[in-house]
Amino acid sequence: MSLKPLGDRVIVKVDEAEATTASGLYLASEAKEKPQTGTVIAVGEGRFDNDGNLIKVPVSVGDKVIYGKFGGTEVHYGGEDVLILRADDIYAICE
Amino acid sequence: MSLKPLGDRVIVKVDEAEATTASGLYLASEAKEKPQTGTVIAVGEGRFDNDGNLIKVPVSVGDKVIYGKFGGTEVHYGGEDVLILRADDIYAICE
Amino acid sequence: MSLKPLGDRVIVKVDEAEATTASGLYLASEAKEKPQTGTVIAVGEGRFDNDGNLIKVPVSVGDKVIYGKFGGTEVHYGGEDVLILRADDIYAICE
Amino acid sequence: MSLKPLGDRVIVKVDEAEATTASGLYLASEAKEKPQTGTVIAVGEGRFDNDGNLIKVPVSVGDKVIYGKFGGTEVHYGGEDVLILRADDIYAICE
Amino acid sequence: MSLKPLGDRVIVKVDEAEATTASGLYLASEAKEKPQTGTVIAVGEGRFDNDGNLIKVPVSVGDKVIYGKFGGTEVHYGGEDVLILRADDIYAICE
Amino acid sequence: MSLKPLGDRVIVKVDEAEATTASGLYLASEAKEKPQTGTVIAVGEGRFDNDGNLIKVPVSVGDKVIYGKFGGTEVHYGGEDVLILRADDIYAICE
Amino acid sequence: MSLKPLGDRVIVKVDEAEATTASGLYLASEAKEKPQTGTVIAVGEGRFDNDGNLIKVPVSVGDKVIYGKFGGTEVHYGGEDVLILRADDIYAICE
Repeated sequence: MSLKPLGDRVIVKVDEAEATTASGLYLASEAKEKPQTGTVIAVGEGRFDNDGNLIKVPVSVGDKVIYGKFGGTEVHYGGEDVLILRADDIYAICE
Repeated sequence: MSLKPLGDRVIVKVDEAEATTASGLYLASEAKEKPQTGTVIAVGEGRFDNDGNLIKVPVSVGDKVIYGKFGGTEVHYGGEDVLILRADDIYAICE
Repeated sequence: MSLKPLGDRVIVKVDEAEATTASGLYLASEAKEKPQTGTVIAVGEGRFDNDGNLIKVPVSVGDKVIYGKFGGTEVHYGGEDVLILRADDIYAICE
Repeated sequence: MSLKPLGDRVIVKVDEAEATTASGLYLASEAKEKPQTGTVIAVGEGRFDNDGNLIKVPVSVGDKVIYGKFGGTEVHYGGEDVLILRADDIYAICE
Repeated sequence: MSLKPLGDRVIVKVDEAEATTASGLYLASEAKEKPQTGTVIAVGEGRFDNDGNLIKVPVSVGDKVIYGKFGGTEVHYGGEDVLILRADDIYAICE
Repeated sequence: MSLKPLGDRVIVKVDEAEATTASGLYLASEAKEKPQTGTVIAVGEGRFDNDGNLIKVPVSVGDKVIYGKFGGTEVHYGGEDVLILRADDIYAICE
Repeated sequence: MSLKPLGDRVIVKVDEAEATTASGLYLASEAKEKPQTGTVIAVGEGRFDNDGNLIKVPVSVGDKVIYGKFGGTEVHYGGEDVLILRADDIYAICE
């Protein structure tokens, strides 16, 4: 069984805490929002703007991303934590 | 008697609690919103965007879905729980 | 004297409590919103979208509907309760 | 001296309480909003939509209307109460 | 020195309290908003809608108007009170 | 070093208190918003509307303006107070 | 590893406190929002308006900027503080 996100939603496999430290990346919380890192495992088709044009999701499967956890929904799936969030909640790609 | 949802509304038959466990899918609540799984039993025709184009509902009858229960309305119908919710409240399809 | 609703408003004759039970339909409240059933007795002409196209009301006189009572306005008229509500507050048609 | 409402505003002469009872129309308040009846005595030219089209006010002078008093402004004028309100605050015409 | 309002702003010379009584116009406050009368002494050029069309201010210098004082800003200027407010805060013209 | 405001922002040199009195202009505060006077020292290029047209800032360098201080940000720069605010927060030009 | 901001986001290297004093620039806080200075180290591609036109970010890598810290997210990266914020949260460029 796999999950297919709808619209501009993205599914992210959450990094474990020790991996975060190893990469030398430390994330400080601002206003109760907890930024985190993870890897994209599925993306939706995107959303339509007011003129009916499809705005594609700007990340791809495999991208390591920094996201704001505030609006996301946690799902425990296949033995690991995944997060369903909106594309706009992803701040940056770590390259 | 059957229910025909209006606009971009979707009617979902709520999964029973044991079925949820059997599929190995565990859903953790975030910010008092309770994500759940269910099966789509009816879909509306969609909603119109600002230019009058019809945006169809992205799920079909029979799809097993993960949704956010927050905005939905429970209706006990034909001996089982169904939920009327907006298409945008459906996060992902379980395939 | 009759009532002609304006814009996308709809006038619904509220079902009596015993009728609701007879149809085997039980409605549970969510977040203080009380969904109910009734029969449409008048509909407005619809509302205009941003491009000036008329969006007609998606129900017709005689339809039995499920609606969210939250935004409606009760009017006692001709000896029975009627409700004036927006078309978008109607969730589904019972067929 | 007369009052000329601007935009989509409408001026309504408020029905007296006994007249309301005589017509057999009883209005129950919902969520602190007090629906009332009155007669339209002046209408504005309407409002412009996003494309510059004029959306005319859907009532005419002389119409007896049901309105939501919540957003209106009372003005005592020429010895009687009049109410300045937006066209969208008028729910229905009594015909 | 004169004041030139920007956009859809209007400058109104506030009526004195006794003038209001003399004209037989009494204004009752609703929800802490204080409607008042005054005379327009300057108008802005208007505002642009989403398509770049200029929406002119619907009042002219010299018009006696009823306005909602809620959103305005008082300025003491040239020995008398003037009020800077948005065109949409003007309810009606007294003719 | 000079400051170049972005978008529809404007930088204003705040009038000193005695200058305000000398010009015979007294500003009364409304709802905790403190209107003040100052002189424009830099303007942004403007903002784009929904159709991609540039809406220029309606003031120029050197204009003496009345503004609402509520949304602005104070910066102490070159020995004097300057204020960075949005063009829409400027109410009128003193000519 | 480098960070690539998405959409209209910008990554800014925060100025240290002593640098701020040396440049003679003092920033006073307004309404709990803390304006600060920093240097742009990465910019996103921009955002799309309602007609699908790309609105580019108005700053470039290397620009020294004044920004409102309120909406940003702090990330400790490569031994120094960087901030991920929206282009609209940048007030001005120091030239």
